[in-house]
Amino acid sequence: MHYRDFGNVNCNGNGNGIGNGIGFGNSNGNGDVNGSNEKVNGANETIKMKPMDSELLREQGHIMVDFIADYYKNLQDSPQDFPVLSQVQPGYLRDMLPHSAPDQPDSLKKLLDDVTKKIMPGLTHWQSPSYFAYYASSTSVAGFLGEMLSAGLSVVGFTWQTSPAATELEIIVLDWLAQLLQLPDHFLSTGNGGGVIQGTACEAVLVVVLAARDRILKQVGKTSLPRLVVYASDQTHSSFRKACLIGGIHEENIRVLKTDSSTNYGLPPESLEEAISHDLAKGFIPSFVCATVGTTSSAAVDPLVPLGKIAKKNGIWMHVDAAYAGNACICPEYRKYIDGVENADSFNMNAHKWLFANQTCSPLWVKDRYALIDALKTNPEYLDYKVSKRDEVVNYKDWQISLSRRFRSLKLWMVLRLYGSENLRNFIREHVDLAKQFEAYVSQDPRFEVVTSRYFSLVCFRLVPLDADEDKCNQRNRELLAAVNSTGKIFISHTALSGKFILRFAVGAPLTEEKHVTEAWQIIQKHASKFTCNGNC
Amino acid sequence: MHYRDFGNVNCNGNGNGIGNGIGFGNSNGNGDVNGSNEKVNGANETIKMKPMDSELLREQGHIMVDFIADYYKNLQDSPQDFPVLSQVQPGYLRDMLPHSAPDQPDSLKKLLDDVTKKIMPGLTHWQSPSYFAYYASSTSVAGFLGEMLSAGLSVVGFTWQTSPAATELEIIVLDWLAQLLQLPDHFLSTGNGGGVIQGTACEAVLVVVLAARDRILKQVGKTSLPRLVVYASDQTHSSFRKACLIGGIHEENIRVLKTDSSTNYGLPPESLEEAISHDLAKGFIPSFVCATVGTTSSAAVDPLVPLGKIAKKNGIWMHVDAAYAGNACICPEYRKYIDGVENADSFNMNAHKWLFANQTCSPLWVKDRYALIDALKTNPEYLDYKVSKRDEVVNYKDWQISLSRRFRSLKLWMVLRLYGSENLRNFIREHVDLAKQFEAYVSQDPRFEVVTSRYFSLVCFRLVPLDADEDKCNQRNRELLAAVNSTGKIFISHTALSGKFILRFAVGAPLTEEKHVTEAWQIIQKHASKFTCNGNC
Repeated sequence: MHYRDFGNVNCNGNGNGIGNGIGFGNSNGNGDVNGSNEKVNGANETIKMKPMDSELLREQGHIMVDFIADYYKNLQDSPQDFPVLSQVQPGYLRDMLPHSAPDQPDSLKKLLDDVTKKIMPGLTHWQSPSYFAYYASSTSVAGFLGEMLSAGLSVVGFTWQTSPAATELEIIVLDWLAQLLQLPDHFLSTGNGGGVIQGTACEAVLVVVLAARDRILKQVGKTSLPRLVVYASDQTHSSFRKACLIGGIHEENIRVLKTDSSTNYGLPPESLEEAISHDLAKGFIPSFVCATVGTTSSAAVDPLVPLGKIAKKNGIWMHVDAAYAGNACICPEYRKYIDGVENADSFNMNAHKWLFANQTCSPLWVKDRYALIDALKTNPEYLDYKVSKRDEVVNYKDWQISLSRRFRSLKLWMVLRLYGSENLRNFIREHVDLAKQFEAYVSQDPRFEVVTSRYFSLVCFRLVPLDADEDKCNQRNRELLAAVNSTGKIFISHTALSGKFILRFAVGAPLTEEKHVTEAWQIIQKHASKFTCNGNC
Repeated sequence: MHYRDFGNVNCNGNGNGIGNGIGFGNSNGNGDVNGSNEKVNGANETIKMKPMDSELLREQGHIMVDFIADYYKNLQDSPQDFPVLSQVQPGYLRDMLPHSAPDQPDSLKKLLDDVTKKIMPGLTHWQSPSYFAYYASSTSVAGFLGEMLSAGLSVVGFTWQTSPAATELEIIVLDWLAQLLQLPDHFLSTGNGGGVIQGTACEAVLVVVLAARDRILKQVGKTSLPRLVVYASDQTHSSFRKACLIGGIHEENIRVLKTDSSTNYGLPPESLEEAISHDLAKGFIPSFVCATVGTTSSAAVDPLVPLGKIAKKNGIWMHVDAAYAGNACICPEYRKYIDGVENADSFNMNAHKWLFANQTCSPLWVKDRYALIDALKTNPEYLDYKVSKRDEVVNYKDWQISLSRRFRSLKLWMVLRLYGSENLRNFIREHVDLAKQFEAYVSQDPRFEVVTSRYFSLVCFRLVPLDADEDKCNQRNRELLAAVNSTGKIFISHTALSGKFILRFAVGAPLTEEKHVTEAWQIIQKHASKFTCNGNC
């Protein structure tokens, strides 16, 4: 046995730009790994590697940077090679890969060839400039670098002790972001509240549902769990219902309050008030309301001011899910949409959605951190470590579901510093401007209609009914959606509002420019003619 | 306004090896960003940036690769600059950073200077070769590259549709890993079960507790929740109790079964059998047992064969938490520790712990995927997308807490391919050999004792009592721990077993070699003399 020195591999570079044969394992410069090269430097010697070698990391890291930079370049320059919505069929990958893990190492070159040939066709390209589906999950140069650095340092900040910088930077950066959002002081670390980065908005709503549940059960006794009721509109993200069911809230006690076009799908405060009265009269215990700023379907906005007053009056925990639109609220002109947040108990936004922080980065602020900690704390002996006489310190393990946690604040800090808040506001404003432009296109074409008022960077639209038949209209829109997405040139998604099948055009991918929006509209128009020509086309 | 072209920044490189002045924002080659440079190219022009630029990503990505490679090089070559356990005091970072986010962009050079000067001192270096605390959270070159690629592609694979490759590679790679572990066929995707990558073992145990809870409540009715009882040993990870409380299991229905040195802290099957009988007699509903292979305190092993039989006989869900030691079971000589897994309903290990996959990567296999899906599925309209006539596809959103998910299988695939299973086995064997060596050192020094039998790469040891006073002995060991960790040269951790304060020496960091173990022992010996010389030193 011997150790292979990767810094001095004597290989025949083949000049293809990916690694030049510099490889893990028994690379011989052309990626052949399964042949006679398994034994090198004499008979019966198996190549022995080390899991970490700084110079191998350097060489291969550079190769990977070029691979990723080329990906972004090609997404722009050769969009025909990257169908935005993957066009593969289920099961496509199984036959392209071996049926078991290899015993012996493979070269990086060969692996990256497989990424290009086998993985890429199965990707839906969320970072494509022509990605307009769901909401974007935007990365950026700074967000990517932050994720790299976090992966490189690979610390695990479950308690303060296990990497003080990871905890302290998170506290500081969430205070910064709270200021940009003009959140009330009680969400800052200087009060009883504070911020914590969850992985997703789903985790965020789960931990606050649990905090609210346990706070009230401490008063009324845990056998009252079947009497707890929770409230949200019919537009609320599916993770709310899931969080409640996880927490043992009875499904029939989840009050789904109706919305319609008269409030642009925002939750009418009267509905909440009535529901609470009704429940109180029946002996239920109202405990939680989830308000949304920027719903998943149509970016609807629940009116936080009246909802917050009702919640406060009734001692109900109000959570604000602003996963998407919360990001826009760093711009003064959009801040009004979270007016009333001062009466909320918790507020959440996904910085990986529209603050360019790379997955996963979902800041959550709570008014009372002890409610969270009471619901989620653990105290195993092996983590009991006094750090100094003067502390208490923050141990974020008690603010989340998992014990372990990545150094997520690093990328948020890097995004804020490397762009500065003015540029971040501009990125958001440019996306909103592009959405406005798309909205104008739709409005100018009589075959289409804009369905809901646009607040941010999402346009909800559809082909108008040719006659009064809404079912037929839904079917035409469904077919239009399938047709444009099957081109691979753009990807848009859909939703349902008041029984109507609606098309969604959401701007937010980091490479999107005016020309991509214009092209997208042309593709939609072209395919629309199939469904609007009354058979004469 | 103008767009800054980062590919052609005309800056004055200062040759310091970090970026040469290539920077985000208004870099002038020396990192000065807050002065007159805010306006460039004429009066009243503010620098406008783009969130993504492939050539900027390339330039800055290379800088970051070198920064990270230098970090690993320096961790080895200049350990004196990197105290393994951070020595900062709580609150150290607050005064080193501004009180709010910057309006204008900062340069990457300046940011990396801050990482070096302000963040690094606050890191506990989990990847240091002299890190022996808790269990390692090991990265590797391949794991790091995989994380980079995942961050670079930035797809969100919540449904099959949203990136088929992300779902399909996960299915395939978890089948590969299941084969390496010789898991029973029903855990493979070809049966009713299958694998899914959770973020952490905490998420894994939570989702199976919920699956088991809902499966049984479907039979007995949800009002029976207060009658559900669950079982685990007193050595079980704190996440089990947390998962049960999250799921609304009553705290007093969590049966914590005692262990002691007679079974080397493994769960005695008779205890489980007795507890179940007792609970059945009282009208409780036994529903879940969490068995551990490689406990957090002492790497104890619960006997899966008898426990599995008892669980099966009583229709109880048995989960196997093998977060740490499961990784070793890819070696034939350790596979015996999970004999009996064929009677488990779920099995989990952390590939980011000891399979070098970088955080976070926690494969979970279940025997009945529908139990998981029944507990966790959501069906919002906007994700209802028929992909083809012939499927059902896997939508991993219904196998986990969150909707969104990273492309985690990429790094596991890369680790398996770029090292090959033989090298991965060798990495583990080398770590176990190093632990054996440490164990031999301890055994040869009469001042110390090895406390529990070593199965894997963890040695539990302590200073022996000088007299019969266990309290004094505990205090001496506590002081020894603090003394060696305050040197910054090594980091070890502790636990408690049968009331004894125990020192833990866990090998698993990717850079650790024989010399680091020998040095660690010398440091421990040196400090031990303070506590063992009876005042004559």
